[in-house]
Amino acid sequence: MRAIEWDGKEFKLLDQTKLPRSVEYIITDDYRVIINAIQRLAVRGAPAIGIAAAFALAFASGRIEISSRDAYVKALEQIAGEIVTARPTAVNLRWAIDRLMKRAHAMDDVSAVPSSLLDEAEKIREEDIQMCRQIGINGAALLPDSGGVITHCNTGALATGDHGTAQSVIVTAIEQGKKLRVYADETRPLLQGARLTMFELQALGIDATLITDNAAAFVMKQGKAQAVVTGADRIAANGDTANKIGTYGLAVLAKHHDIPFYIAAPSSTIDMGSPDGTAIPIEERDPKEVTHPLGTQIAPDNVNAYSPAFDVTPNELITAIITEHGVITPPFKEKLITMSTAGKVDQPV
Amino acid sequence: MRAIEWDGKEFKLLDQTKLPRSVEYIITDDYRVIINAIQRLAVRGAPAIGIAAAFALAFASGRIEISSRDAYVKALEQIAGEIVTARPTAVNLRWAIDRLMKRAHAMDDVSAVPSSLLDEAEKIREEDIQMCRQIGINGAALLPDSGGVITHCNTGALATGDHGTAQSVIVTAIEQGKKLRVYADETRPLLQGARLTMFELQALGIDATLITDNAAAFVMKQGKAQAVVTGADRIAANGDTANKIGTYGLAVLAKHHDIPFYIAAPSSTIDMGSPDGTAIPIEERDPKEVTHPLGTQIAPDNVNAYSPAFDVTPNELITAIITEHGVITPPFKEKLITMSTAGKVDQPV
Repeated sequence: MRAIEWDGKEFKLLDQTKLPRSVEYIITDDYRVIINAIQRLAVRGAPAIGIAAAFALAFASGRIEISSRDAYVKALEQIAGEIVTARPTAVNLRWAIDRLMKRAHAMDDVSAVPSSLLDEAEKIREEDIQMCRQIGINGAALLPDSGGVITHCNTGALATGDHGTAQSVIVTAIEQGKKLRVYADETRPLLQGARLTMFELQALGIDATLITDNAAAFVMKQGKAQAVVTGADRIAANGDTANKIGTYGLAVLAKHHDIPFYIAAPSSTIDMGSPDGTAIPIEERDPKEVTHPLGTQIAPDNVNAYSPAFDVTPNELITAIITEHGVITPPFKEKLITMSTAGKVDQPV
Repeated sequence: MRAIEWDGKEFKLLDQTKLPRSVEYIITDDYRVIINAIQRLAVRGAPAIGIAAAFALAFASGRIEISSRDAYVKALEQIAGEIVTARPTAVNLRWAIDRLMKRAHAMDDVSAVPSSLLDEAEKIREEDIQMCRQIGINGAALLPDSGGVITHCNTGALATGDHGTAQSVIVTAIEQGKKLRVYADETRPLLQGARLTMFELQALGIDATLITDNAAAFVMKQGKAQAVVTGADRIAANGDTANKIGTYGLAVLAKHHDIPFYIAAPSSTIDMGSPDGTAIPIEERDPKEVTHPLGTQIAPDNVNAYSPAFDVTPNELITAIITEHGVITPPFKEKLITMSTAGKVDQPV
């Protein structure tokens, strides 16, 4: 099952808010519908958001009336701006849009922009599939031959073009013959671990156990976990990493229990423009996502709730960052500059 | 609103599984109904469980047919055994039952046992109310004059005879004029923080904010929390403390952020018979409580889930234990022996 399907004619987004109870697709070529899907997390996961955003801009580019090149580009830039602000933390969204806009800016004949942007969106998706496969191969070697691995949120096929990021690492290791059990944090408030990760791991026939987020510490203390692997929404130039709320706590707990803590993400997640974690904007979500999970009210009416969608894990708690180009170990800052200089990070320094 | 009401004629248990959406009472004098209520957490919180258990045994004692003293006591012991095993971790349950059985054993005329045990159950409840008030007074001094306090699960009036334990500390400090904001962990899987703590704090007009359990780390990192206070289900002789799942993780996080971590509990929670945390049995609950919160399915059918009801926080992560007799600071082992020798701990060494 894929988050995003495109056969050259029909664009389909799996509505992940309905999983696992119902499999429903959003069929659209309206960029506003795609923005809405990104905002309400019908499509989520930093790489998948980037891909969906690219298609949104490509579709929109075909609907702009062409009076002059300047007017066309201006209209396209405005739409690009709308898409980029759909969600503030995941940097792949901006990265994908920047990539398409660069291509549009380079073209003299704007009538050819729509098909060119569609090609580029398709290319981003195909590259993501290859990147995820490579992340899996690069990271699998880090996992032990047997034991438990804790993961958080969803980082599988549903979060990416295919294969996933952190999940690709775990699944590849298991395909290689490692005897691993996955402990999936349920990941409140939106329960992507319970709804999506358990759904994917079950389909893959992987030994997986669902736990509440607050049980991870005890699972570590009991010696049931030998590694933690999560994805990332944005990696700053010093390695500080924004990811789903709860990731930072897991990293602190892993450190306390002397368990390695890995981040797995494509290099498009690295934002050399954010010097450290303090530069990363943290999205706050509607408190109703806390007080009414899946529509069920769990708290009295009118209570205050605080719902940061992400937190930032400082680089000193990260054992290694796994990308498609290889495994980065501390000191991250120097190595990320080297990677960037070598053209292996698309983000500008 | 009280968890347990007894007017000398009618015994009422508030069905806390229905809160906050509905206020329903279980009216019964059948000890099996009370055991069932304890098992399914209609009544919960270590002190409240102890009180409910005492009434259960008192009611049962009036239903035993008296053929001989020996047969009567044997039947009573059997019922006591059934009640004690209703939940394995909270020691107040055993403590309350032991206290009633001691009284029964001391009586020659068993026909007087039922009224005597009812007196004792009522006494346990009244003592609990006084203890909770004293815990609040003893602990309030430890909290800062302003700032945020994180708490976990529910430790208010609903968990005790009245006032609560950790919640009594926080509420007393606020009554004394301290400007505190409470961050209440929602406390998965059964959401006692969201359902019960927020309900109680809202009713008390206290500045309270609900957070998902996995947001506590970020709240600490942001400097929003200056202390953590939780209750306890059992405190071992060395200070290791079993409490609701998630407490241990909070203690590790508090240590990492250099925030004091306090346990507040009546001395009946101290189990001198458990030398350390490894001796405390940890109840595992039905995985459905994880996969179907409040009846809403959040994970695919037939997934594995692991649901320990409690975890153990090692004594080195605890800043102080607040009891009705005073505040105990490390080294806990020596001080708990002193307390016990002074007759201030009811549990045998």
